[in-house]
Amino acid sequence: MERVFRHFQDELDSLKQRLLTMGGLSEERVRESVRGLMDRDGSALDAVLAGDQPINDLHIELDDRCFKLLALHQPMAADLRVIVAAVKINTDLERVGDLAINIAEAGKRYLRHAPVKPLIDIPRMGELAQSMLRDALDAFVRRDTALAEAVLAADDTLDALKTQIFRELLTYMLENPATIEPALDLILISRHLERIGDHATNVAEDVIFILSAKDVRHTGPGAPKAE
Amino acid sequence: MERVFRHFQDELDSLKQRLLTMGGLSEERVRESVRGLMDRDGSALDAVLAGDQPINDLHIELDDRCFKLLALHQPMAADLRVIVAAVKINTDLERVGDLAINIAEAGKRYLRHAPVKPLIDIPRMGELAQSMLRDALDAFVRRDTALAEAVLAADDTLDALKTQIFRELLTYMLENPATIEPALDLILISRHLERIGDHATNVAEDVIFILSAKDVRHTGPGAPKAE
Repeated sequence: MERVFRHFQDELDSLKQRLLTMGGLSEERVRESVRGLMDRDGSALDAVLAGDQPINDLHIELDDRCFKLLALHQPMAADLRVIVAAVKINTDLERVGDLAINIAEAGKRYLRHAPVKPLIDIPRMGELAQSMLRDALDAFVRRDTALAEAVLAADDTLDALKTQIFRELLTYMLENPATIEPALDLILISRHLERIGDHATNVAEDVIFILSAKDVRHTGPGAPKAE
Repeated sequence: MERVFRHFQDELDSLKQRLLTMGGLSEERVRESVRGLMDRDGSALDAVLAGDQPINDLHIELDDRCFKLLALHQPMAADLRVIVAAVKINTDLERVGDLAINIAEAGKRYLRHAPVKPLIDIPRMGELAQSMLRDALDAFVRRDTALAEAVLAADDTLDALKTQIFRELLTYMLENPATIEPALDLILISRHLERIGDHATNVAEDVIFILSAKDVRHTGPGAPKAE
């Protein structure tokens, strides 16, 4: 029994490590999509568009690992929560990979036009979304409630940046119709980055749920209080 | 043992019924958000904005039911797949409810302006997204692979409508700057509807996964072939 238990814990640790690997991959794809936009580097964007196979493979591998852990070990209570959370986090990370593709697609269209303006807030959104994702996964692996709560708080900043970008670009569009098409793509990119933050928020909520056995979802705006 | 087994099947049936209830609620919220936009009925949109509590309550209830089924009955193989799929479907339906709110918010902003044009494709997208959602859930409950595959195929139509709406509205924006703000909201609404179709697609993929034990995700563009 001792042996089986140790095997289960090894498998669980290995699952967490693979989730971190997948998180690192999706984060890198977000970084590359924003960098390609900033540097007007179309081939970097092409690489993002062509490079989703490793994440898709990991998505299937992780789902499979979760199923096997559930089916073979029939874990109880705390471990069950971790594995079900892993199923959800796996889905969130795969969507982040898809959003990197959406950013790269909009970025490619953007590069066909003259720059609308120097981009300042979009790279800030990109960095914030990446750090939220990293922190949410670290919180999952290290079982760190405070870090997960910091991710929830950061989401408000990301939303505020998105609103600011929208207002600013609207002004450009109204003043100069030549900016309408490229500005639309920047607006879409800011929305994709906001959704990456939403996925990081989902992960953080799952972490808080695992650790506190308390459901912090649907508790209204703002981060929940620390216990 | 017979008694415990029957109890488990009853619980599983009850879980499916509650998922259908949640699907019905989220579908109704999508319908009301699009109807409010079409009829320029601000109070219908306010009702959507204020009415997400029942879905959020169901979301927590369903997660809880899935956990209890996993923890108390330790289901194997086929049943395990159904319950893990239910966890994912629950998340998808809750997001559909959130997207109805996003549509209502953009709709409220749209109503502050004169209509850009008669809306034809947006209600078509709304009806298609709703029927995809309904079919995906029916496919889950009735274990109907063909219906799930029809949902995957319908997603291409939804994407084509979104692209068409984008091109048409871009023309309006370029010709008349007074349409820029309201047209932007219509573009966002079409993207929210597209994402509702994506959630229906996720559900359909889960159904095919349950029924065929074959992972149809990440198989490239287009619907997978029927077996």
